Amino acid sequence: MRVHAYAAPSPSEPLAPTIIERRDVGPNDVLIEIKYAGICHSDIHTVRGDWGPRPYPLVPGHEIVGIVAEVGSEVTRHQVGDRVGVGCMVNACRDCVNCRNGDEQYCRGGMVATYGGVDRDGTITQGGYATHVVVDADFVLSVPEGIDFAAAAPLLCAGITTYSPLRRWGAGPGKKVAVVGLGGLGHLAVKIAHALGAEVTVLSQSLKKQEDGLRLGADHYHATSDPGTFTRLAGRFDLIINTVSAPIDVDAHLGLLAVDGTLVNVGAPAEPLALNVFSLIGARRSYAGSMIGGIRETQQMLDFCAEHHIGADVELISADKINDAYDRVLASDVRYRFVIDAATLG
Amino acid sequence: MRVHAYAAPSPSEPLAPTIIERRDVGPNDVLIEIKYAGICHSDIHTVRGDWGPRPYPLVPGHEIVGIVAEVGSEVTRHQVGDRVGVGCMVNACRDCVNCRNGDEQYCRGGMVATYGGVDRDGTITQGGYATHVVVDADFVLSVPEGIDFAAAAPLLCAGITTYSPLRRWGAGPGKKVAVVGLGGLGHLAVKIAHALGAEVTVLSQSLKKQEDGLRLGADHYHATSDPGTFTRLAGRFDLIINTVSAPIDVDAHLGLLAVDGTLVNVGAPAEPLALNVFSLIGARRSYAGSMIGGIRETQQMLDFCAEHHIGADVELISADKINDAYDRVLASDVRYRFVIDAATLG
Repeated sequence: MRVHAYAAPSPSEPLAPTIIERRDVGPNDVLIEIKYAGICHSDIHTVRGDWGPRPYPLVPGHEIVGIVAEVGSEVTRHQVGDRVGVGCMVNACRDCVNCRNGDEQYCRGGMVATYGGVDRDGTITQGGYATHVVVDADFVLSVPEGIDFAAAAPLLCAGITTYSPLRRWGAGPGKKVAVVGLGGLGHLAVKIAHALGAEVTVLSQSLKKQEDGLRLGADHYHATSDPGTFTRLAGRFDLIINTVSAPIDVDAHLGLLAVDGTLVNVGAPAEPLALNVFSLIGARRSYAGSMIGGIRETQQMLDFCAEHHIGADVELISADKINDAYDRVLASDVRYRFVIDAATLG
Repeated sequence: MRVHAYAAPSPSEPLAPTIIERRDVGPNDVLIEIKYAGICHSDIHTVRGDWGPRPYPLVPGHEIVGIVAEVGSEVTRHQVGDRVGVGCMVNACRDCVNCRNGDEQYCRGGMVATYGGVDRDGTITQGGYATHVVVDADFVLSVPEGIDFAAAAPLLCAGITTYSPLRRWGAGPGKKVAVVGLGGLGHLAVKIAHALGAEVTVLSQSLKKQEDGLRLGADHYHATSDPGTFTRLAGRFDLIINTVSAPIDVDAHLGLLAVDGTLVNVGAPAEPLALNVFSLIGARRSYAGSMIGGIRETQQMLDFCAEHHIGADVELISADKINDAYDRVLASDVRYRFVIDAATLG
C-alpha cells in the first residue's frame, strides 16, 4: 500500500512530500487512517541526526491519532471505525522481564521505535506524518470520545511522558509538585498534576507564560532566572518533573526538594551533568529519569485524560507548514504543540 | 565534671590525652560511663578540617556504647546500669516537620552533631573518645544484650548508615542488592542485607577481600577494576549501596541497575560527580543519597542486629594507638573497624 507522507530526505534538508510503502495488514495488524500527528521536539533531534545516524528518507511522527480502516483476522481489541492512537513504540519482544511487567519501553531487546526503528520483520519503521500506518494491534491505543481528537495526539508522547512519573512518584492530594519548563511536555504535566489533585508550581525561566500557567492549572509560578526562587522555595517540593532537555543546575533544583523528594528528568541533555552528592544525602533525595510509559499505562493515561477533559493546547497546521513549525519549536514559539492535519498530506 | 579524653589540639597535630569538662546532668540528661568508641573514617576528615573549620581542641567519636551512671530527674526511658549507645547526633529541634517524622538527622534547624557541634545551650559538643559523656535521654539508644558490646559501637554510625537505606529501598527476599566497597560501612551493609534476606553482591576494587565478603554473608563478589564486571552484571540489581566516599563512575554503576533500581550513596566525595541523564532515563533508575537514620530507626536497627546477632568485626585498641589507627584507616588497613577500649583513656 502506497501512502502520502512528509519525509526528511537527509539530516540537513527540509522535510518534503513523498510516497511511502506500508506493509500488508497481517493477522494481528491494524490499518489506521491517520487524522492528526503531533510534532514532538524529539522529531527534530532525530531527523537532524542529533541523536545518532538514522536511515533516510525518514518520516517522523510518534503522536498519532486516527480511525481504524482495516483489522487483521486475529485482531479483537480494535474494530473498523474506532478512534485509536499510536505513540513512541510499535513493537517490543513481549517476553523479557520488563515487557512482562508492562514496561515495553524498557524492553531488554530494545523497543521498536515508531519511526527510524528496525521492526521485528527487519523493515525500517516510518512514522505518523503520513495518511496511513499499519501497526501491531497490541501497540494501538483506544482514544476515548471525551478528548478532542487533534488535542489527543500529543498525549501519545508528551502526555504519557509526564503522566507516568507523576503517577509513579505519587503526585496527588497533599503533595507539592513542581514542573520545570512550560512547553509541550510541561503544559501537559501541569494539567495532569492538577487533575491528580497535587499543588502545582511552574518553574520557568521567566514569568512570560505565567498567565497561561495559572490558567492551565498551576497554583504558583516562579522564574528560575531569579536566584531568590531557589532560596525562597528551598526544601519545598515532594516531586519535581524536569521537562527541559537543556542542562540545568541539578544541585540548585535538588535543593528545592523536601526530605525524600525526587527530581525526575523526562528529557536528557546530550552532555553529562554535574551534581554534588551532598545535595542528595542532605535530605535523602533522589534524582531519577523516566521515559514515556508502557502500553497498559498509556491506555490508563488516555482514559484519565478523557475523564478529566485533558488534551494538549494545540496549533493545527497543514503539512506545508511543517518546516516552519520546526523552526518555531526550536525557538520555543509554540503554545503548546503543533499538530499536523493529515488531510493536508495528500 | 572533668573526664579523661583524647583530643585533636589542631587540624594538623596528632590526638593527645587531655581532660575535658562535661556538663552537669540536667533533668532530661543521662550520664554514660563510656566502654567503647568506634573510629569512623569521618572522625579523621572532621578533625583534620577536610570538611571545614572546627573548634579545637576537638574530641571525636560518634560510635559510643557505655553504661548509664546517672540519670536526670525526668528521665524514664533509661536507668542506671543500662547498656546504652550514642550515635552521630545528640540533639535536634524536635519541632520541625522532619523531626516530627522521626528524621532528626534532617532537622531543618540542623541536628546537633555529637562532636564539634553547637548544642542548644550554646556549648560545643565533644565526642566519644572519653571516659564519660552527658547526653539528652531522647538521643540515647538502648543496646540489647544480644550484641557483643565492643562490636555494637560501630552500629551507632556505620550500622544505621547502611541499615536505613537498605530498609527504605526494600532490601529483602527476592531482591538483588549490591554493596560497593567492603570497609567499615560495607561489611555491615553485607551483614544486614543478608539478614534481611536479600541476595547480596559485593563490588570491590579487587578480589583481595573476597573470602571475607563471602563469610560475612555475600552471595557473590566481583572486582570493579575488571571492566567485564560492568557488562556481565548490566541491569542486574534492584539496589546498590555505595559506601565509597571517593568518586565513582556513576554511569557505569547506574548501568548495573534493573528498571526502577536505585543507587544510594551513603558517603560523598567533596567534588561534584558527572552523570549522563540517559543512564537514569533508560531504565527509570534513581540516584539517591542517605545520611545515618533517625533515633527511632536507630533503635530498630539495634534491635534487628541483636535479633540477628550482627555486630561489627572490630579490632580493639588502647587509646595510645589512636593515631596509628588513623593512619591505618586512611590506608584501608583495617578489618573492619577500630574500637577504642575506653578503660585505657584514664
